[in-house]
Amino acid sequence: MAIPIKNLPMFSRGDDVGEILSNHFEFENGDIVLIASTIVSKSEGRVVRLSDVHPTPRAKEIASQIDKRPEFVQIVLDESDEILLEKPFLLVCRKGHICVNAGVDESNVEEGYALLLPSDPDKSAERIRDRIMELTHKEVGVVITDTCGRPFRVGQCGVAIGCSGVSSVVDWRGRRDCYGKELRVTREVVADELAGFANILMGEGNWRIPAVVVRGLSHLMGDGKAVDIFRPKKEDIIRDILHRQS
Amino acid sequence: MAIPIKNLPMFSRGDDVGEILSNHFEFENGDIVLIASTIVSKSEGRVVRLSDVHPTPRAKEIASQIDKRPEFVQIVLDESDEILLEKPFLLVCRKGHICVNAGVDESNVEEGYALLLPSDPDKSAERIRDRIMELTHKEVGVVITDTCGRPFRVGQCGVAIGCSGVSSVVDWRGRRDCYGKELRVTREVVADELAGFANILMGEGNWRIPAVVVRGLSHLMGDGKAVDIFRPKKEDIIRDILHRQS
Repeated sequence: MAIPIKNLPMFSRGDDVGEILSNHFEFENGDIVLIASTIVSKSEGRVVRLSDVHPTPRAKEIASQIDKRPEFVQIVLDESDEILLEKPFLLVCRKGHICVNAGVDESNVEEGYALLLPSDPDKSAERIRDRIMELTHKEVGVVITDTCGRPFRVGQCGVAIGCSGVSSVVDWRGRRDCYGKELRVTREVVADELAGFANILMGEGNWRIPAVVVRGLSHLMGDGKAVDIFRPKKEDIIRDILHRQS
Repeated sequence: MAIPIKNLPMFSRGDDVGEILSNHFEFENGDIVLIASTIVSKSEGRVVRLSDVHPTPRAKEIASQIDKRPEFVQIVLDESDEILLEKPFLLVCRKGHICVNAGVDESNVEEGYALLLPSDPDKSAERIRDRIMELTHKEVGVVITDTCGRPFRVGQCGVAIGCSGVSSVVDWRGRRDCYGKELRVTREVVADELAGFANILMGEGNWRIPAVVVRGLSHLMGDGKAVDIFRPKKEDIIRDILHRQS
């Protein structure tokens, strides 16, 4: 069962996300709360005014190739540890999370501003989870979600960028199939699968449903982190090929 | 609400999937049925005995690089339109769907056999949907799912490989955010998001829950196809880079 948390206010800097969610929803033990990164970012003040940014020549050069404002590109570069592609879109690695534009968003924020991802989404998830549990005395899990594109398939899906109290990756190694044979599939990324489904209920745009509770899957609770989902650089063949051709 | 269809039999060649599902579940209008590709493949007889396969020298060479049987590699090559990577794993394009080993599976099938993906999964979805609607007189959508890895993130998630009666890709272009600005996210691949969530309920291995019904999201019904999800070759930057380096 998946339940949208409705009637939430617009979020802004300093808001206590855990408290606001607890005031708008009757949590039960085992609930997994999926929270859109936008409201976490806003509550953490992760908003930058474009006119405050001074783009470097490099940002200007990239901007001219991808039809973006240099100030926006500068923010992306500042958020990135590594650039994987400069064009036709800016694909970067941000603390292990590979995404376009480092997740920096010009929609869902006031005109002239950009919204950055939470600084440390796993830590944000932990903080929000601790707060909900403190206020409600219920054992919950928290997943912070973002919407990402991916190679080979069009469009975008919800993914997990921060987790606390949830098994982000379920390891099936050693399990057997219906015929007693060892499984081909070894690691299922349930946090991404949950994030995708929550994304459907959140909608995009002006629905204003930034949080969804999944109930009845308490077996997915655990101590995973979103950083466990990010493929280590040395194991990432595709990333290596991108790196070598750049 | 997501409801696993329980107590389903083991499937084999010639089984009428639509009829069997209809006999095991009370469908309602607007239900979206997510079906694991394994049972569709089995019902379509998409099973190959490895000892019947005669591998070419090329299959033998690839097999030696990736620690697979040459017969298995030959089946994968026969299923593939294009090889994107030969090692350290065999990444191919199969009718637009880019996946490892062309989705050929040695688990969830008897020892000594390999299970192939349905020949035309969109068509399979359509056939099963038509059959369910014929028998139940309910308007349903059908998504055929598989479990796939992806670049940049570890592990695997459920994805849609066949669709009928469902909006596989929801286009948000022209919609506006809470601030009235045009959205950054333009196409949400709800069929993949549904498939991922269903994958959690199906489990891997010997749970034997190959079908899950999502109820309450009838606004996602439409006339999308899974082929709409596969990124066209000429728009796929990452695929192009893989191609150029190979």
